[in-house]
Amino acid sequence: MYINENFLKLPGSYLFAEISKRESAYRQAHPDKKVISLGIGDVTRPLAPAVTEAMHRAIEEMASEATMRGYAPYAGYDFLIDAIVKNDFLAHDIQFSANEIFVSDGSKSDTGNIGDMLSESNRIAVTDPVYPVYVDTNAMSGRAGNYDNEAALWNKIVYLPATSENGFVPDLPSKAVDVVYLCYPNNPTGTTLTKEQLKVWVDYALKNKVLIMFDAAYEAFITEENVPHSIYEIEGAKKLSIEFRSFSKTAGFTGVRCGYTVIPNELEGFDKIGNNHSLNKLWYRRQSTKFNGTAYIVQRGAEAVFSTEGKKQIKETITYYLENAQIIKNSLEATGMQVYGGVNAPYIWAKTPAGLSSWEFFDKLLNEAQVVATPGAGFGKSGEGYIRFTAFGKRTDTLEAVERIKRLKL
Amino acid sequence: MYINENFLKLPGSYLFAEISKRESAYRQAHPDKKVISLGIGDVTRPLAPAVTEAMHRAIEEMASEATMRGYAPYAGYDFLIDAIVKNDFLAHDIQFSANEIFVSDGSKSDTGNIGDMLSESNRIAVTDPVYPVYVDTNAMSGRAGNYDNEAALWNKIVYLPATSENGFVPDLPSKAVDVVYLCYPNNPTGTTLTKEQLKVWVDYALKNKVLIMFDAAYEAFITEENVPHSIYEIEGAKKLSIEFRSFSKTAGFTGVRCGYTVIPNELEGFDKIGNNHSLNKLWYRRQSTKFNGTAYIVQRGAEAVFSTEGKKQIKETITYYLENAQIIKNSLEATGMQVYGGVNAPYIWAKTPAGLSSWEFFDKLLNEAQVVATPGAGFGKSGEGYIRFTAFGKRTDTLEAVERIKRLKL
Repeated sequence: MYINENFLKLPGSYLFAEISKRESAYRQAHPDKKVISLGIGDVTRPLAPAVTEAMHRAIEEMASEATMRGYAPYAGYDFLIDAIVKNDFLAHDIQFSANEIFVSDGSKSDTGNIGDMLSESNRIAVTDPVYPVYVDTNAMSGRAGNYDNEAALWNKIVYLPATSENGFVPDLPSKAVDVVYLCYPNNPTGTTLTKEQLKVWVDYALKNKVLIMFDAAYEAFITEENVPHSIYEIEGAKKLSIEFRSFSKTAGFTGVRCGYTVIPNELEGFDKIGNNHSLNKLWYRRQSTKFNGTAYIVQRGAEAVFSTEGKKQIKETITYYLENAQIIKNSLEATGMQVYGGVNAPYIWAKTPAGLSSWEFFDKLLNEAQVVATPGAGFGKSGEGYIRFTAFGKRTDTLEAVERIKRLKL
Repeated sequence: MYINENFLKLPGSYLFAEISKRESAYRQAHPDKKVISLGIGDVTRPLAPAVTEAMHRAIEEMASEATMRGYAPYAGYDFLIDAIVKNDFLAHDIQFSANEIFVSDGSKSDTGNIGDMLSESNRIAVTDPVYPVYVDTNAMSGRAGNYDNEAALWNKIVYLPATSENGFVPDLPSKAVDVVYLCYPNNPTGTTLTKEQLKVWVDYALKNKVLIMFDAAYEAFITEENVPHSIYEIEGAKKLSIEFRSFSKTAGFTGVRCGYTVIPNELEGFDKIGNNHSLNKLWYRRQSTKFNGTAYIVQRGAEAVFSTEGKKQIKETITYYLENAQIIKNSLEATGMQVYGGVNAPYIWAKTPAGLSSWEFFDKLLNEAQVVATPGAGFGKSGEGYIRFTAFGKRTDTLEAVERIKRLKL
């Protein structure tokens, strides 16, 4: 049996696996030290009462012959899809039919698997730094080409730097591409695009027949006016964009697993001879063949996120995390570091002090402050010299972590 | 953006989608008729009390800051993996390390996604009839070649007929292949291989460096001695086989979503220049990049399947379904039909009467008896002339369905 050799081209471990390895090694060597993780973007607040109540009820349904549920519809139950269409889109004056929403076990699966319906020949562009899943999954499918270890770049990927120099607003690609991944509010930088800035991308994509993969996993953290909650707020976006949404950060579902993907009916891809094909239909085929639906219990929990009580409880949690973000931002700024994000996102992106590399500063934070952050270089070449902190920690831990950092000699 | 044109080669709809369509159309046209489905393999018994109690407790943990869980380990929690290793393998004298077990959201996802780590160049063999996911997912990846509508065959797939003529024991491939999919107890035929018959396959695969994808989703239904519960009961199988397991049929998890895949550490694949690579490591990389773990609540539910109470409750449900199987088998035989399976599996495979095609008999059952079965032809060319009944219905429905069938003019 022959393996997919593209896997062999992947450099080292997946970022978070590497962090976890270093953290574990430190913990084993220093069992007396309390390590605080502001690294991986995992939540710490419990599920909202509205969600757990809905899940308890769903379990009771599953416990009775009269009300038990077997296989779920491949793309999700109507009750959840209706709640999504109404609350996440109609509330922003965007109309969708139920068949345009695909509920899944999470955005990581969807952003990873979406490539199944793309030709290997597509030229891919990503912002840099970038959520590694976009790049690694394209690499696994042969669309990234070969990895240059020294340059820390894949030779077929078009990188769009987003750094303090350009205010974290990437330029349009200077060469022709077929697919662009955009994530706003951005992971890892915590920065956003305004409606006008996103419109530049939509217009570019319309003109050049480019597909935008828009990851809006952090939409719930937007606090400022004029920051789009969905790419479909921009006119024409339905013709060229897939949007990914997640309950992970919105409602603390990282361990519950639910997200959804929007594929508008009017969105089309091309075959080699130039015929158009509905991506919505291709994705339905993919999901009905390789996926068997999202757990009923989980979908009932997700539905409860949109209830009156659920919305209120979720908002309290988001506010809590945004206050953490403010604490981290202010504390890092007090040390003299240059800090970005944290206003419309749970991520704070900071320049490493004293010319340290991302991993050097990661190790310094781990060894001297017992704080785990995420090295910017792990998100791509342009992330070198930065480090990411997340606002998902407990308040007491967040406060203790920033106090320790303030005491460091930077 | 260019689509994966392999999707365009897929003939018609996914089998169960087509059945669902015809069933819905009939129900809409005849709202007064009670349709009984013995078609899709979905369960009807509620979850076991041990499982729902464990899930309720898990939700309470998720509701409290002190005990909430975020991202699960990519390959599953130790508590579940340990229970799997002990109960599903050590109990049959098979040893596995924790890292050889990958917990997921179900076997359909795993059997579909496993191809991610295989080269497009692999030559695939499947038994015929076959669970459509094996073929369709390979077709999506370009390994099936082109579909010949008239012959109902993919030109690159090697088909291994399993029919009444060979007692449903397929011959070894007559041409060289790299990967063989085997599912025992078999879906759709409900037949099995003895240890001696499976040993023939393991020996063949060892000799020819073939990977066996062994789908053991129906293992819990085995009642006869000398039918292997796992391919790893056969000496040498760890060197050449991946095994898929599911809680769907074992414990009524079709709407809960949990399964697992075993990839032994000693299992290797080749690159083009003949170097060996650990498939276990490749799969970990795939899962950590494209999957974010199985819900904690679900994993606690799955763990409870292995508790003393859980085992007892699950066994009662399996016995209930096997009694349904016996009822269907005996009733169909009473009509003079030739019937197979149903002893070590929840599936009954019957020859269609009076020379009807599979879909003709499907339509006859639907229109004249309001019974939904699954046309054998939907599982492949050698399934033509057969039809599949499942034992997963309610007892009262099963009894009514067979009474209606007995009254048909066949």
